[in-house]
Amino acid sequence: MSKRIGKQTIKLNSKPKIITTTSVVGPKEGEGPFKDYFDIILQDDLDGKDSYEKAESSLLYRAVSETITKANLKEQDINYLVAGDLLNQLSASNFAARDMDIPFIGLYGACSTMTESLSVASMIMDGDFADYVVAATSSHFSSAERQFRFPLEMGSQRTPTAQWTVTGSGAMLLSKNGDYPYTTYVTIGKIKDYGKTDTNDMGSAMAPAAVDTIKQHFRDTGRTPQDYDLIATGDLGNFGKKVTQELLKEYNYDVSKNYIDCGDEIFDKEKQRTQCGGSGCGCSAAVACGYLYKEMLKGKFKKILLVSTGALMSPTTSLQGETIPGIAHAVSIEFGGN
Amino acid sequence: MSKRIGKQTIKLNSKPKIITTTSVVGPKEGEGPFKDYFDIILQDDLDGKDSYEKAESSLLYRAVSETITKANLKEQDINYLVAGDLLNQLSASNFAARDMDIPFIGLYGACSTMTESLSVASMIMDGDFADYVVAATSSHFSSAERQFRFPLEMGSQRTPTAQWTVTGSGAMLLSKNGDYPYTTYVTIGKIKDYGKTDTNDMGSAMAPAAVDTIKQHFRDTGRTPQDYDLIATGDLGNFGKKVTQELLKEYNYDVSKNYIDCGDEIFDKEKQRTQCGGSGCGCSAAVACGYLYKEMLKGKFKKILLVSTGALMSPTTSLQGETIPGIAHAVSIEFGGN
Repeated sequence: MSKRIGKQTIKLNSKPKIITTTSVVGPKEGEGPFKDYFDIILQDDLDGKDSYEKAESSLLYRAVSETITKANLKEQDINYLVAGDLLNQLSASNFAARDMDIPFIGLYGACSTMTESLSVASMIMDGDFADYVVAATSSHFSSAERQFRFPLEMGSQRTPTAQWTVTGSGAMLLSKNGDYPYTTYVTIGKIKDYGKTDTNDMGSAMAPAAVDTIKQHFRDTGRTPQDYDLIATGDLGNFGKKVTQELLKEYNYDVSKNYIDCGDEIFDKEKQRTQCGGSGCGCSAAVACGYLYKEMLKGKFKKILLVSTGALMSPTTSLQGETIPGIAHAVSIEFGGN
Repeated sequence: MSKRIGKQTIKLNSKPKIITTTSVVGPKEGEGPFKDYFDIILQDDLDGKDSYEKAESSLLYRAVSETITKANLKEQDINYLVAGDLLNQLSASNFAARDMDIPFIGLYGACSTMTESLSVASMIMDGDFADYVVAATSSHFSSAERQFRFPLEMGSQRTPTAQWTVTGSGAMLLSKNGDYPYTTYVTIGKIKDYGKTDTNDMGSAMAPAAVDTIKQHFRDTGRTPQDYDLIATGDLGNFGKKVTQELLKEYNYDVSKNYIDCGDEIFDKEKQRTQCGGSGCGCSAAVACGYLYKEMLKGKFKKILLVSTGALMSPTTSLQGETIPGIAHAVSIEFGGN
């Protein structure tokens, strides 16, 4: 059976199983609408460390190690850890992986990292290169603010299109066997740049990439929005979600009935004052490893298309007048059903 | 046939072929010992751009697009571009990939990126997920200096163990068929941190990772140093190379006869005043895509073990008192012979 389907999609004939997941979030996320779905809610967003960067690394470490423990496995059983984050030189992931005895593949896809790592992990499994692979990512509000925006101490005012970087991490453990949700298709995205320059409106910058990948996924697989119980983008936020939905309509894909954006859902935007919603690699990671995975196990969702979305600018490129390139990778996750 | 060999190595039964490569370097590298092996030598290290970051992106773009052109292919024929670089948020790779119509997988492994991308690309090929994949990376002396060290304008004095970041890029195009050098084994490394903190001596920080991966490669495959015509580490430099050779001896692997370090070789250290030698993702990339690949085609080398090496600190982690974690990934490249 051919594994390549259409132009950009691969079919995972072995259906790699996601046997355990762990979501770890900060105190604010732990007060949001998905609070009952997270495995670990930190009381302190420093997690006992002396810097936010070290705290983020600790979050990722907790997510990965808890995921392995839940499966009654040990670090030595895991063939690859595939992970990345937003920090310069991937420091959250590198320093978490340093403390683990696992061969490490570091990725950077900005906030698309959950599905980037899950895509690569799924290929490694389906290619029969591993028995167990962990895909993971993290982000932290305070480490992201000071790296990408302003020192928190300045108390800068946020724009209406701004999003709130999620303090959170998610990890998924893939295996060959077992009765668990499994990945069936992977559509790796191309970089799309429609000339947006406002780094306080990343939803609009990423929306064209989300649309391109989702559209291509449907074309390649012959599926339609109705084939999914849920289509979940990463962190487009309230505004980017609307843009995505409108643009998909132009390609004759109506997703109005079964489309959510993880960033749009993770906070109570009014009460928690998060403007357009959540963002960061940890956003779709924590929602996918918490709410989505757990509701799949309960049977609420049988087929999900998870589409994490990344804005690929850096502070340097923005200062040099560059626009914001976006990327999105889609993974079909299925359980039960036909 | 099982693809997993020993603890950390996979065997690529389909032997993915490296059908074309391209090396692009700056003016200084183009005056070094390997000058006759590079495909493109820039006259101007800005490459006509208005920033070093944009110049680095342009280098990578040139390497990838020339590699595709050489094979008489078009961007649309390439199923994946797997690439990364040293810049924050991977901006050299992201902005090069933005201008290409190719699904993109961004990686970060610091200077280990050539073998990290080649490893992932080889798995994608061997897993039958693609017909054509490009693995690539880049670095640029001036963009790296200002991001990791000091503004060039300061004219800071260099320490004796310092290395000179290579301005260069390398790209390899993998395909299923053809009579070309091919990859046979991949050993993905674990992160090793022996507590080094001197960011002006990264060779010593990375040496334990190189030793760990090389040792594990030999144990997993049953091969010995004598099975290779050449073992080439990435950018340990003169000093790190000595450390690696000594440490491997403690495991009873004598590599004294057939071991080079790309960083140790790419410059004439005396005449070009590069202290311990070259570094950067572009170092092992340009040497592998230039000297090593071309000498394989001529029959000088039949079996090479390429081991790119990365130092995974960031300026932030160093300022926060962290040590320097290292990583190394090994890929066997073979051509002709038995």
